[in-house]
Amino acid sequence: MTDLDPLLAPSAVAVIGASPDPKKIRGRLVTALKASGRSRPIYPVNPAHKSIQGLRTYGAIGEIGRPVDLALIAIPASKIASALEECADAGVKSVVIYSSGFAESGGASVERQARIREIARARGLLVCGPNSVGFLNQTSGINASFSPSANIGVKGYGVGRRTAIISQSGGLGFALYNRGVRRGMHFSHVISSGNEANLSALDYTEYLLEADEVGAIIILLEQVRGGGRFLDVAARAAALRKPLIVAKFGQSKAARRSALSHTGSMTGAEFAYDAVFRHAGVVRAEDQDELLDVAAAFTLCPLPKGRNIGIVTISGGVGVWLADACERRGLSVPELSNACQEELRGFIPNYGGVSNPVDITAQALELGGNIRAIERLYAEPGIDSVVAVAFTAEHGAVTADKKSLAHLQQRGEKPLVYCSYAVPHAEVLDNLSKIGLPCYTSVQGCARGLQVLADYADHLKLRNADVLPRPAKTPPLPKLEAVLIEHAATPYLMALNIPIPESRLVKTAADAVAAAAEIGGQVALKVQSPQVTHKSEVGGVVLEVIGESNVRQAFDQVTRLPSDIVLDGVLVQQMAPKGIEMIAGVAWDETFGPLIMVGFGGNEAEILNDTAWAPAPFGEARAEVLIRSLRAAARLYGNAQTQPADIAALASLLARLSLFAVDNRDHIQELDLNPVVLYEKGAGLIALDALIVTRKN
Amino acid sequence: MTDLDPLLAPSAVAVIGASPDPKKIRGRLVTALKASGRSRPIYPVNPAHKSIQGLRTYGAIGEIGRPVDLALIAIPASKIASALEECADAGVKSVVIYSSGFAESGGASVERQARIREIARARGLLVCGPNSVGFLNQTSGINASFSPSANIGVKGYGVGRRTAIISQSGGLGFALYNRGVRRGMHFSHVISSGNEANLSALDYTEYLLEADEVGAIIILLEQVRGGGRFLDVAARAAALRKPLIVAKFGQSKAARRSALSHTGSMTGAEFAYDAVFRHAGVVRAEDQDELLDVAAAFTLCPLPKGRNIGIVTISGGVGVWLADACERRGLSVPELSNACQEELRGFIPNYGGVSNPVDITAQALELGGNIRAIERLYAEPGIDSVVAVAFTAEHGAVTADKKSLAHLQQRGEKPLVYCSYAVPHAEVLDNLSKIGLPCYTSVQGCARGLQVLADYADHLKLRNADVLPRPAKTPPLPKLEAVLIEHAATPYLMALNIPIPESRLVKTAADAVAAAAEIGGQVALKVQSPQVTHKSEVGGVVLEVIGESNVRQAFDQVTRLPSDIVLDGVLVQQMAPKGIEMIAGVAWDETFGPLIMVGFGGNEAEILNDTAWAPAPFGEARAEVLIRSLRAAARLYGNAQTQPADIAALASLLARLSLFAVDNRDHIQELDLNPVVLYEKGAGLIALDALIVTRKN
Repeated sequence: MTDLDPLLAPSAVAVIGASPDPKKIRGRLVTALKASGRSRPIYPVNPAHKSIQGLRTYGAIGEIGRPVDLALIAIPASKIASALEECADAGVKSVVIYSSGFAESGGASVERQARIREIARARGLLVCGPNSVGFLNQTSGINASFSPSANIGVKGYGVGRRTAIISQSGGLGFALYNRGVRRGMHFSHVISSGNEANLSALDYTEYLLEADEVGAIIILLEQVRGGGRFLDVAARAAALRKPLIVAKFGQSKAARRSALSHTGSMTGAEFAYDAVFRHAGVVRAEDQDELLDVAAAFTLCPLPKGRNIGIVTISGGVGVWLADACERRGLSVPELSNACQEELRGFIPNYGGVSNPVDITAQALELGGNIRAIERLYAEPGIDSVVAVAFTAEHGAVTADKKSLAHLQQRGEKPLVYCSYAVPHAEVLDNLSKIGLPCYTSVQGCARGLQVLADYADHLKLRNADVLPRPAKTPPLPKLEAVLIEHAATPYLMALNIPIPESRLVKTAADAVAAAAEIGGQVALKVQSPQVTHKSEVGGVVLEVIGESNVRQAFDQVTRLPSDIVLDGVLVQQMAPKGIEMIAGVAWDETFGPLIMVGFGGNEAEILNDTAWAPAPFGEARAEVLIRSLRAAARLYGNAQTQPADIAALASLLARLSLFAVDNRDHIQELDLNPVVLYEKGAGLIALDALIVTRKN
Repeated sequence: MTDLDPLLAPSAVAVIGASPDPKKIRGRLVTALKASGRSRPIYPVNPAHKSIQGLRTYGAIGEIGRPVDLALIAIPASKIASALEECADAGVKSVVIYSSGFAESGGASVERQARIREIARARGLLVCGPNSVGFLNQTSGINASFSPSANIGVKGYGVGRRTAIISQSGGLGFALYNRGVRRGMHFSHVISSGNEANLSALDYTEYLLEADEVGAIIILLEQVRGGGRFLDVAARAAALRKPLIVAKFGQSKAARRSALSHTGSMTGAEFAYDAVFRHAGVVRAEDQDELLDVAAAFTLCPLPKGRNIGIVTISGGVGVWLADACERRGLSVPELSNACQEELRGFIPNYGGVSNPVDITAQALELGGNIRAIERLYAEPGIDSVVAVAFTAEHGAVTADKKSLAHLQQRGEKPLVYCSYAVPHAEVLDNLSKIGLPCYTSVQGCARGLQVLADYADHLKLRNADVLPRPAKTPPLPKLEAVLIEHAATPYLMALNIPIPESRLVKTAADAVAAAAEIGGQVALKVQSPQVTHKSEVGGVVLEVIGESNVRQAFDQVTRLPSDIVLDGVLVQQMAPKGIEMIAGVAWDETFGPLIMVGFGGNEAEILNDTAWAPAPFGEARAEVLIRSLRAAARLYGNAQTQPADIAALASLLARLSLFAVDNRDHIQELDLNPVVLYEKGAGLIALDALIVTRKN
């Protein structure tokens, strides 16, 4: 981990090219620094001025003569390189470059950005940007950004841990921060990473994860640079129970078209991001409000023990709406125990409801029924999270219950949140914010917050329960580009203990007849040539062959190929019993390395495209979750007519494949087992074809 | 349509049980009426006072002696019935009953509600409630509610049509109104329909649709009462291009459990609501903000000609995020024409983007680039809707462009909306509101608004293009509960021109042999008994039978049943060629009448449960859209290996079935064609089994 203290918590700051005009970025930065919470030396640098905004101003960075941790640079792109050298010469440890005109402009400007990277490395400078809006650090009290959204300044601490925001997209991170503060949320850092010539979103993430005050990190992401490291960072986040909450842009055609024009980055394969995020416990959000909904839940609530939600409401309709939203998200709103219902009936009128949602009615509200019901549900063993649906538009709406709510929230045994169907009164929001109680203003947002808490708890459990398989001793793969077709892939499958049918590679029809006789029963004949990876399409496969003449005929059929096709031979293979046809495989992803795939095979595989992906490696527990995430997974569960399939056998295969993929990450480009025929529970599976494509590294 | 003017636009209003205390509901109503925009006589009625809140007060409603259109009633439930009689005697035309203690309380209180219904009918009184929060009418300037959310009073008109809100869930409608006003939206009515003893949500909808100022109606719905009428009202809404925007609560288990406790209503089958809403063009929303996002689009924007979105942005990242959101919702963000890109390049720096999203950059923004780009996209023929992604947090953010934006919005040729990633400044919001320009603050909300406009335009086109099939002359169905199994259903299928295989009903093995010989080739033998509706499960079907002895054996097999099963005989049926197995059918829904179903059949039908539903009747065009909405519809489209299926034939079958279902709506409980085997395009289909269950009516 790179220590970013000199950048994000500097003792003294210089502004190179500082201006007296607060309308200019170069002036606004000085204003922002001055308005920051903590007093620290600020050194404007500008040879044309003696004093700027009341601060003594220097002709050059080298003239300051005192230690400078951080220099803010907002001068034309062409002059940045020499400014960096001067900073390094003067002992400056870090810089923020606000200027644009680098990779995002294309052409020669790309070179300029490379030059920044070189200087940063050579001189040991920490560089944020270029093309950055700057950063804000609430903990050390510094606003080094020119964003108007940061004008609300540096606010004091509240209860609970804080949210950090890292944005690859300029002003958006600060706008999100501003929106969150208005919701009564507390933040630690907002960082605009810009073009990431030197420091990347991952560097900031790694650093912020270790900060005590940080409870969750929001990342506005256009591209991950260094996917393997992303997985490591995500693993560290999980270990610390500090979720990464990501909005990932750029999957649309329009985005890909315009990618070069705005951050100088290209976006990767969307399904790979999806797979990696799901696997790594990264929570994806699709909107600014959703990012905040999720962050509020994670920073202010403990993780729940289960998925049972208790709802207290003063509006029957909204209570029901929230229950609908919870159930749709895989949460449960269970009927309360008789004892609990009886107690509730003691202070709720008969036209209210005590089943769950608990509809306290306006009458009970006036008699303190709200907090009594909340406390009762909080104490109820069968309830894992408690929501109070409230009308918070009026001054004083939570005043009476404030102490009791604070007390519950401090106990921290269960998630406890408010869900207001009215726009909350500022005083109410302030009260709840001080208590550290999330106040949702949307039923879906509230349900989403409760859902991610439960999902994350499950994710951590699964992560802990998952055990990697024992490594298998497999033959070395070719260290060059090669296509290993079925017969050539066989040794690897055998070493991985993946069942395959009895087979013989033969060169002549006579040998085929002999092989078929040895194997006995019906056989398949399959042509083998690295030039023929889709055998069926060229008539290279004949199934269910029995008897000498049929074998000869089949041999002729499968070898009837253009003369430029070089054959390894023909595989004579025992026919396998019918079962459910699956596909399993490995694909090399430029960003994230080896990804494992499982899906439904058969005739309709391409039409239905029901596949699931995860980054390697993983154990059987996670493999099983992956299999169950297939859209048509119900096919594997059995019903009145059919037995359940051997999901455990498939999970085991995937886990072994995933470890093999990691051990050979430098060589496997692609690996396909298609089909893998899956049998009834306990009866295992068999791989009927295999293909391994290797690459040079 | 019931004329609701006396209720919603009254000339004079009485408050029965009025109180001087504005903290009590009975007092708050007087205060609210006084604060309403328009001056109209207000008559407090309370024998204990001579004057209330400065108004002359009467001892009884009959003492007023002047015409009273509307009486507001907030007295104990037990006294309501006699108050209603007194009102009717005094010539009052309408009442709002705020009191609770009716159907929502269960028990004897249900009777009380029935009594209100009777009096309303007998005396021709319009009754809103009981258990209503009241209503607000911005057009006629009256606030007859006690909701604190209505305290913002009655605001003046803006540009564009207005949104009406009807809520079955008390305070929620007013909270939504309050939230919308803060977003700069304009409303016409907010109505809390309460327990709907007399007037229902449908009555209000029907009335509001005809009001000129109403552009869209939001309905917060727990239950539709009278589903057939709902379809008629939705059709009227479509004819007027005034969309119904519905949040439907109550699908969760928790909701069903608590349904009785909060509005005295039971909720219906969720899939039926889904089917009806989709078919009727009712837009469903899942959250308060989404309701407003959709309503803002419909009231302020024309319908677009197509699905192409043009995006102008000052933040590359947000532009891309919005493009992602649009594409995910079936919209397109196409590359702009060369001519357009060239013109844009004239005023956008090279590090901006001109492809779409058009990234104008901060530099161009300062030189008026925003409005120039908006105007250029508005003029571009290939662009159907225009969005400006903006940072509106600062005072004056749209001041310079205000006139030009207003001009464009008045032209009304294309949807034009703002999408702000910052929380908008109040002045900016006010400016946009006066122009009638929706200002979204969420990328998903904005994309959703643009999507519903495009979807609704498509819906209206489809509705206009759809032609009902010619009615078929079918035999009368039994007017009692009956089960018509395959052979008995045959005459109906033939009359409906649904292809079926050649079949003979036989009683003996000898006749079966003769029938098989007549039919020729392979046959199926299927036992026929109304007691055996699942023939395969009891061994009652043998397929691919050929030859005398096999036919005899099959006959024995299928008739081997317990002695209490009475057989109609055995059906000897020509085997049909293989194809794609589908299911088609009719189900009677208590709320919405006959619903038509189509889905994938075959072994896995129950596991995958891939079905689509629509209310009858409809034509082939809509049937085809229904078929294409199946999850695995791609199975029907063909690919390298398979031909496209005869979707037109299946659409035609569904359309004919839908008309048959409507013509026999009083008798058909259930109709199943399973399987319907679908062949290649042009080759039609064949129904291999049929079942009709009738009911008494």
